[in-house]
This record gives sequence, C-alpha cells and structure tokens, in this order.
Amino acid sequence: MTSEEIKIEVLEMGKKARAASHGLAKLSTDEKNAILHAMADGLMAAEATILEENAKDIAAAEENGLTSAMIDRLKLDPESLAAVATGIRDVANLHDPVGELLKEWSRPNGLRIQKRRVPIGVIGIIFESRPNVTADAAVLCFKTGNATILRGGKEAIHSNRAIADALQAGGAKAGLPDASVQLIPFTERESVQHMAEMDKYLDLIIPRGGAGLIEAVVSMARMPVIKHYDGICHVFIDKNADLEMGVNVAMNSKIQKPSVCNALETLLIHRDVAEEFSPRIAEVLMAKNVELRGDETFQKLAGIDGVVPATEEDWKTEYLDYILAVKVVDDIDAAINHINTYGSKHSDCIITEDEVAAVQFMNEIDSSVVFWNASTRFNDGAEFGFGAEIGISTDKLHARGPMALEELTSYKYLAFGTGQLK
Amino acid sequence: MTSEEIKIEVLEMGKKARAASHGLAKLSTDEKNAILHAMADGLMAAEATILEENAKDIAAAEENGLTSAMIDRLKLDPESLAAVATGIRDVANLHDPVGELLKEWSRPNGLRIQKRRVPIGVIGIIFESRPNVTADAAVLCFKTGNATILRGGKEAIHSNRAIADALQAGGAKAGLPDASVQLIPFTERESVQHMAEMDKYLDLIIPRGGAGLIEAVVSMARMPVIKHYDGICHVFIDKNADLEMGVNVAMNSKIQKPSVCNALETLLIHRDVAEEFSPRIAEVLMAKNVELRGDETFQKLAGIDGVVPATEEDWKTEYLDYILAVKVVDDIDAAINHINTYGSKHSDCIITEDEVAAVQFMNEIDSSVVFWNASTRFNDGAEFGFGAEIGISTDKLHARGPMALEELTSYKYLAFGTGQLK
Repeated sequence: MTSEEIKIEVLEMGKKARAASHGLAKLSTDEKNAILHAMADGLMAAEATILEENAKDIAAAEENGLTSAMIDRLKLDPESLAAVATGIRDVANLHDPVGELLKEWSRPNGLRIQKRRVPIGVIGIIFESRPNVTADAAVLCFKTGNATILRGGKEAIHSNRAIADALQAGGAKAGLPDASVQLIPFTERESVQHMAEMDKYLDLIIPRGGAGLIEAVVSMARMPVIKHYDGICHVFIDKNADLEMGVNVAMNSKIQKPSVCNALETLLIHRDVAEEFSPRIAEVLMAKNVELRGDETFQKLAGIDGVVPATEEDWKTEYLDYILAVKVVDDIDAAINHINTYGSKHSDCIITEDEVAAVQFMNEIDSSVVFWNASTRFNDGAEFGFGAEIGISTDKLHARGPMALEELTSYKYLAFGTGQLK
Repeated sequence: MTSEEIKIEVLEMGKKARAASHGLAKLSTDEKNAILHAMADGLMAAEATILEENAKDIAAAEENGLTSAMIDRLKLDPESLAAVATGIRDVANLHDPVGELLKEWSRPNGLRIQKRRVPIGVIGIIFESRPNVTADAAVLCFKTGNATILRGGKEAIHSNRAIADALQAGGAKAGLPDASVQLIPFTERESVQHMAEMDKYLDLIIPRGGAGLIEAVVSMARMPVIKHYDGICHVFIDKNADLEMGVNVAMNSKIQKPSVCNALETLLIHRDVAEEFSPRIAEVLMAKNVELRGDETFQKLAGIDGVVPATEEDWKTEYLDYILAVKVVDDIDAAINHINTYGSKHSDCIITEDEVAAVQFMNEIDSSVVFWNASTRFNDGAEFGFGAEIGISTDKLHARGPMALEELTSYKYLAFGTGQLK
C-alpha cells in the first residue's frame, strides 16, 4: 500500500467509527449486554478460524526468532480463547455507568440542570503483542457505548484480525452497529501517526505497551492520550511501624508479582527503626532470591552478605524483577521528599501505627493511590471492586489510578427550562 | 536571548513551579483565602506601577497601528483594575473543592478506600491580548492549589509582568510559596513550544484565544490540553413548540451577546410549523438588523425581502455577529442529524412542549449542554452557579462545558488498611 492509501483507509475507518458511535450511544444497557453475549458467542463460533490465524502468527514468530516468552504471549489455545469469551460475559454483568445521574440542581430562575454520564465517543487503542487485548479493550469500550479502532502489533496481526472480525460479526447478530469494533488491518507504522492526527474522529487514544510506544503516541497525538507509565512504587517503614506488618507488606508488595506496575521497587526505612528492621527484611527477601541494592546505612545494618551498593540510578528504576532498592531516611519528611523526587505517582505506602504520620504521608504524597498499612498491589481495578480495568492510569486528568468503566465515559449537561432567557 | 537561553529559562520556571505546587497543595482553605485577599491588596498597592506599565503597552499598540478595539481590550484604568481586585476577593468567597470526599467504600478484606479531590499540580495558561486574564486565570488556579505559568501576548507584556509581579508579591506577604504565579517574561514565540514540551513540569495547558493559538498548542503539546473552541450553537423549533417561546429563545440566544461562543448561529425549524414560524422570526430578527441566511424553503416562507441564500459554508460557520443561518427540516431526526453533522458539540436547544421529542433530542445530541426550552446563553459558569469559570470546554475528557474550580482539580485514592496483603 502507498502512504496515501494507508492514510485514506485509516481516515475512512475513523469516519465509520464516528458514525457507529452515534448508534452505540442510543443502545440500552440490555441491548448492550445482549450484544456482549453475542460477541462471546461469535468468538467461540470462530474458534477454528482464530486458532488457524494464530498459528500463522506463531509460525512467523518462530521464523523471526522471537523468544519463547514472546511466543507464549502470542499463543492462543481453546482454553485461553474460552477464557476471553468468559471475560466478555463477565463485562456484560458489570454495572453500566452510561446515563448515570451525577448531579442535579435547580437555579433561582427555575432552570433545572442534570449532569449525566455519556460515552466518550470513539476510542483508539494501540497495543503491542498479546492478541487477547483486542477483545478485552474492545468490550470495555463497547460496554460504555464507545466505538473502538484497534491497532495491534504486527506479530499478532492474523490473530487480531480474526478476533476483531469475530467480535464484530457476532455482535452484529444482536444489533451491534457496523464498524463499532474495527482493527487496522495492516501493520505499517505510519497508521499510528494517522490515528494520532485524526482528532476529528478519535476522542481519545490509549496506548497499551512499553514506554517507547507511549512516548511515540504522546509526541504525535492531537487528542487526549491516557497513559499507563511506570510504577516506581515505595513502601516507607515509619518509626512507629508495626515491624512485622512492615515485613509482610514489603514482601507482598515486592514478590507477589514482581513484573507488574504496582509492585514495590524502593523500600524506605526510618532511621529510628532501621537497626531492628533492616536485618529482618534483608533476611526474608534474600531467602526469596531478591537482590537488594542498599544505601550505605542499609548495607551496614542489613547484617547479611550480598547487599549491592545502590546508585542514584536505582532510585529511578522500575525493575519489574526480583530486585529491590533500599534506603534509610532520617524522618518522614525525607521519605516524602524522596518519593516526590523519584517516584512516578503510582502507588506508595506508609507502614505506621501513628495516625498523624499517616495523614501527613497521605496528604503530601501525590500518587494515584496512597496506602496506609496495605500492600501496593491493591492499586488494581478488580481489587477496588471496579470489575475489569483497562489499566492503571499514571495521568492526573480525566482518569487516575485504576481505569475502569466509569473512566471510559464523559458527561454532558441537560438543562430543562420553561422559556428562560438570559 | 538565544534559543538555548530561552529554553533553559522556561525549564527553570517549570522546575520552580513544580516545587511551588508541593507547597500549594498543603495550604488550608483559610490560608488560601487570606492569600487571595493579599493578592488583591498587592494589585491595588501596585496600581501606579501597573498603570505605568500598561501605558507602555498602549503606546506600543498605537505605534504599531493596532485597531481601537484592540487597544480598548489592552487598556487598564483605576476602575478596571479595581474590578480585577474585586474579582479576586470574589474567588476567595467561593467554595474550595480541594480535599472534598468524592466517594468512600470498603472492600470485603476490610480495606477502606476514599476518592478525594486534589490540585492538578502546575497549569500553563497561554493567552492573547487582554491583561486581566493574567489575574483571572492565576487566581482560579491558585484557589484550587495549582501553580501557574502564564504566557501572554506580546502586546500586553508590560502590563502582564506588572500584574503577575503584584500578585506574587502581594500573596507572598500572606504565605504564597515562591514561584506559585509566574509569567514568562519574554515574548519570543518559541517559549510556547518549550512549555508545550515540558510535560515533566506542566500537568495541563489551557490556551485561551483564537483557533490559531489553540491549534498551535494542540499540535505541539505533550501534556493534556483543554480546549475552548468554537460554538456553532443551534435552536430547533419542534412541530410541538410554543412558537412565542421559540421566538423569544431564538432572539435571546442570537442577540443578547452575539460575540460569544454560546450565542445561536443556526436556527432549525420543523417543516410543520415553518409556515407560521418563519415570518414571525424573520420579522423580529431583521428589525434588530440580524442578517438572515436561509435555505430555499425559509427564503420562500419568511415573507420578507433580504433573506440571503445560505450555502453549505453557512452551516459550518461561527459568525459571532448579527448573522443567523436558518434551515427548515423535515422532522426531529433531520434536526438531530444536522446538528451532529455541523455542530461543534457546544450548546444546542430544542423548543417543544412534547416531552418525548425533548428526551430524544437531549439523548441524541452530543453537546456539552443540551437545552430544552431555554436560551443557549445559559451555558456559562456563573449561570450554572459555579461562580467563576475559566472558559467553556469543548473537550469531552476531564472537563466539558463550563470549566470552573472543580474542573481545575484532579483526584487521588487513599486506601486505609490494617496490614492487608494481596
């Protein structure tokens, strides 16, 4: 395809998505839920095709020498596909926020005003390898009345196409408007640029992937972008901490699932308890094969061999691995200052029995979720009771923290008059 | 100044603003209100300096041949400056949304979660000529705990500098953190670009000015931009309209203040009442010197000379003037389709006594405010009871419609545990 042909096709998809969004906004909750079940049915009905197409991606991946971990992420089988379908049915069971009355009041002139949730419109999702994202993202956007344009990585192009086709075809049987779920069917990089520039048709872009992808989208996009950047998460052991709780929360935050954005990356210890706490935490973490990178004081106090000296770089690093940076700080102000300097405003926790310290920490740490005596791993849509989530937003506008169905809506005002003039 | 020097200075201002924002977030409502009064005092104390500096801008404007309307917008006098100070004191009296509890719930594991309003952080305001914007925007951002970096037009540079200095110096006497209100002190265009790129220090940019300015900021910005674009606003006279109300609302929406974004630009008339309504509205509007640009049917039915034939371009135009486009439509669906095709999602109104039609219109029109039997001019922060506003957002994310204090805040979650592990 020529550059011009790609641009024309992407714009045409945008136009169709905009038209679809008008139809989607009119669907009732029951209609949407029926369509979601039909999408799940469509996915199961297309199982053979999807697995065949997936096999093409796997063959290409093997030919191109992708690592086995990458190939694992690409691979679909009857079981994983059934799980995707079950996930769609679960979304049908979630509360529909569209239409919800957020506020209602009357003005002295008798004008009655309502603020109600509405769909955002058309959402672009740009993602990397895993083909199940196609379905997950599309159905969350659909449940909230939004059309989607999906742009997946080239490694999963056959699988993604088959899944998007199955969702659209299945949904259509229950009344899904044409072009509600569209996948960009080619993999030239420039399609991302065309998406990023068509603010007439796309109301929001959500890049799901590494920092490189997000950066690229941010630098090109003319519409809002909701970003899911790094989590450089902290646990601070205060001088009045219950130290056993501190050990348990730090351990859980670090090793329950080290590869995710809400996992602990830097542990801060108040000087007054460092002598007692440092060897305790060092022992249990090293027993779990966590590499510790400590400042000078921690190296001295840990009382165990193998603590690596931490460098400035460690305070800024999201390891996503069995590695933990550890620092002893003079007081709570130093802890807050460290987090506000090096943190990524994601998930930070204080362990303390002192309410005054907890309130100060919770007020002065500017993160999407600030925890008092609980694991940072709870920064999660399901754990918050939101059902499914599209990610953890590291932005401060529109959506912050767990981004679920409500965050996929906008609002409008309805003003009921009796002929009022200004 | 060299390019490199400009960049360094803008980045340095960003760094200082970020530091200031940490201090601002800690201020209590009482402290902020005391600072607002001190800012107003500071402005009045600097009256002589501000008027002297303003005189330099006026002299330059005259030398550069600016129109008298433009010079009027630049000009400050003791009265207009006193009004700015009064406006600041009014903001002190508004409710402070920061800290407000938006939601609170507990999870089955005992984790208690609160969602609370917090400041956004650092807000960049890029605006054109009127120097009073410096104070208006800065104090709304300050009231909500945000630091501001202001970048005004070069026509008002002396006035803007003097006002920003007066606000910062006055506020400092009551505890305003250093660098809470900063004005970019030079007028090279590239400072806008540096602002737009420093997403590390600026959480949001709000351009206030014409479409050219907004476009430029949108195309460069790496952080969220809240836009205040055109209002192509409609009134639709339904077949079951109270026609006298229709005349009154259309008239008020059009001529009460034609130069603003919530003024009526296109009138749509249901075919069933067009014969009766067209001559009535044509007569009163032309008596007020409003130029009418009608489709063929309206030209025939208006029964008055001087209706200009409308072209496709008219349906897309925000006149901001004594001009109105008028079209006769077959039914409510055609009206909705016209508005969704040509409108700008700003302010649209249906005049009808039929609740079914009103509900359909309000559901299917995707505008920031949809009116039933009331003037479009009510899309306004003060009219909504919000006190002051920073503008009418035409965006769908974060802020839509009247953008006031609440829309200048973000939120964070606080999670209170007793040692919960995931």
